[in-house]
Amino acid sequence: MRVYNFSAGPAMLAEEVLQQAADEILDFEGHGMSVMEMSHRSTEFIRIAEETEADLRELMKIPKNYKVLFLQGGATGQFAAIPMNLSKKTDTADYILTGLWGKKAIKEAEKYLSVNIAAKTEPFTTIPELTAWNLSKNAAYVHITQNETINGVAFNYTPKTDAPLVADISSMILSEPIDVSKYGVLYAGAQKNIGPAGLTIVIVRDDLMGKARSYTPMVWNWSEKSVSGSMLNTPPTYSWYLAGLVCKWLKRQGGVEGIAKINDKKAEKLYKFIDQSGFYKNDVDKKYRSKMNIVFTLPDNELDKAFAEQAHAMGLKNLEGHRSIGGMRASIYNAMPEAGVDALIKFMKEFESKNG
Amino acid sequence: MRVYNFSAGPAMLAEEVLQQAADEILDFEGHGMSVMEMSHRSTEFIRIAEETEADLRELMKIPKNYKVLFLQGGATGQFAAIPMNLSKKTDTADYILTGLWGKKAIKEAEKYLSVNIAAKTEPFTTIPELTAWNLSKNAAYVHITQNETINGVAFNYTPKTDAPLVADISSMILSEPIDVSKYGVLYAGAQKNIGPAGLTIVIVRDDLMGKARSYTPMVWNWSEKSVSGSMLNTPPTYSWYLAGLVCKWLKRQGGVEGIAKINDKKAEKLYKFIDQSGFYKNDVDKKYRSKMNIVFTLPDNELDKAFAEQAHAMGLKNLEGHRSIGGMRASIYNAMPEAGVDALIKFMKEFESKNG
Repeated sequence: MRVYNFSAGPAMLAEEVLQQAADEILDFEGHGMSVMEMSHRSTEFIRIAEETEADLRELMKIPKNYKVLFLQGGATGQFAAIPMNLSKKTDTADYILTGLWGKKAIKEAEKYLSVNIAAKTEPFTTIPELTAWNLSKNAAYVHITQNETINGVAFNYTPKTDAPLVADISSMILSEPIDVSKYGVLYAGAQKNIGPAGLTIVIVRDDLMGKARSYTPMVWNWSEKSVSGSMLNTPPTYSWYLAGLVCKWLKRQGGVEGIAKINDKKAEKLYKFIDQSGFYKNDVDKKYRSKMNIVFTLPDNELDKAFAEQAHAMGLKNLEGHRSIGGMRASIYNAMPEAGVDALIKFMKEFESKNG
Repeated sequence: MRVYNFSAGPAMLAEEVLQQAADEILDFEGHGMSVMEMSHRSTEFIRIAEETEADLRELMKIPKNYKVLFLQGGATGQFAAIPMNLSKKTDTADYILTGLWGKKAIKEAEKYLSVNIAAKTEPFTTIPELTAWNLSKNAAYVHITQNETINGVAFNYTPKTDAPLVADISSMILSEPIDVSKYGVLYAGAQKNIGPAGLTIVIVRDDLMGKARSYTPMVWNWSEKSVSGSMLNTPPTYSWYLAGLVCKWLKRQGGVEGIAKINDKKAEKLYKFIDQSGFYKNDVDKKYRSKMNIVFTLPDNELDKAFAEQAHAMGLKNLEGHRSIGGMRASIYNAMPEAGVDALIKFMKEFESKNG
């Protein structure tokens, strides 16, 4: 029996997607082999790859002057690739620090250029007002983490900056409409809203290509990769195929606009329940609450273990918060049905009545 | 119906492995979720990861003073990571150039240090004698491509060098016994003999750790990755799991020693047939013929297309040689059963009798 999996990533996938993958795993469309076994240069795989890109472009309304790259190495790999592709060693980049992923991005970027933390919040429970950002003159780029997976805080708008805006959208890609044209670079690890771990999507505006440092590894040189259609070397073909199945599933859900409505409803329900409860608590500024990663605490962290274990026994898995901050976290990405949130709320009520 | 897939990589996987993956894809061992959906930090996934490493260590007899890393980015990623992890900009490394993958490795390494091509062969049909290698004094390392996938030429011994020996074993890993203790670093993309594309195995001797340059991306810093058990960031979990299924399958085939006997037999049969034929031709020095990638030409390359198409129609797929050198190539990795080679020889005979 399938469970409701609240893991922050790798995360739940739609059962329909997994079922299709299962049906095709030994023999894809009569070719007598699995997609895993296909040459990345075969007609069959190239069709899969191109369709996936076309579907992603359609879903996200990606303008023509942006390239879509299918890379490896995760968002953490791009933490290095971004400064390598966009700056010189003597440059400065502005980073807006709103959570633990932003912190990691900054630590990695500091190897490659001067980082100016133009704004930060600590504890990570809000988004600093744009008017208070201390942006550098001539920054190579401005970096934000659109949704902080660990802290459950998210931008609810796209800041307008002079320097190209670079955003880590790993945990919110495809969950709500986003105006790609306002960004220079968008990037995301696949393992939350796209497919299995091992695929990284990078969306780059054409004018930002071709500036990579001489020591940029070839596989992360955006312009070299782009020229080859992300096939300069063997791409993670099976993850790419699964991303394609997810895109097609998402189109059947009414696309990003359709799923966004469901996501809004899921998040609203859960926050409303938490807020009216005297037992559970979420400290994030209401304006900037994540719709994907909902963090909450119990009145006594001694109860955390019992909460997670009892939830687990009810088929509500992986509700423990990130090891760095503790507490609880429900990651409710696109593949989490509303019924999963309902089941969670029902369990939370019962747990409260027993322990409140 | 499953076909015989002679693709050089991504390549054929054992049907048993795919069948098990299919059976478990929606619900792994009663956990109610796919391995794809599991947190990389979950007890279940960590067990999979550790078992895979233990099986790989057992199969390859990897000594305790070597770390095994599960990375992303392919062998091409390691072309950059190797000099970054093992050398300073002012260092020299020796490269032995025996094929097109060696050429790519050199081109990438030249970004990071001085490359001395200590020996080369062109055309790529043999391995230069060790006594003729012009090795540098104080080389940071010596790099070889143990088996050249495109050219079908392979080392049949491990050269003894003063500097640490680094070998790309992408297309021969797990196909025959290898004495790991003679190497400093072994690395391989998974998509030939291990599993699907998107996983890179790197085996590093302990004393070579901790020398990475300051600008080495964190996800490719071998010592940082090693400390975290390759979980510094989200690893390609599903590929890791499939690599584990392949290792268990290989153990059932009698391990590397068992499969090596079958591989020997497969390669012997096919080379013997080619050599006795006046029609097909393989130019590789007999001592250094690859057992994994068997290249051959027809008497007239005008026949290539018909050969590939007719083979394809018989369920013998992907026999075209690499686009850079043309001709034909049969990649017969571990998962290619002897019956596949028999079927190929039978077809080759028939094609010869019609066109010879």
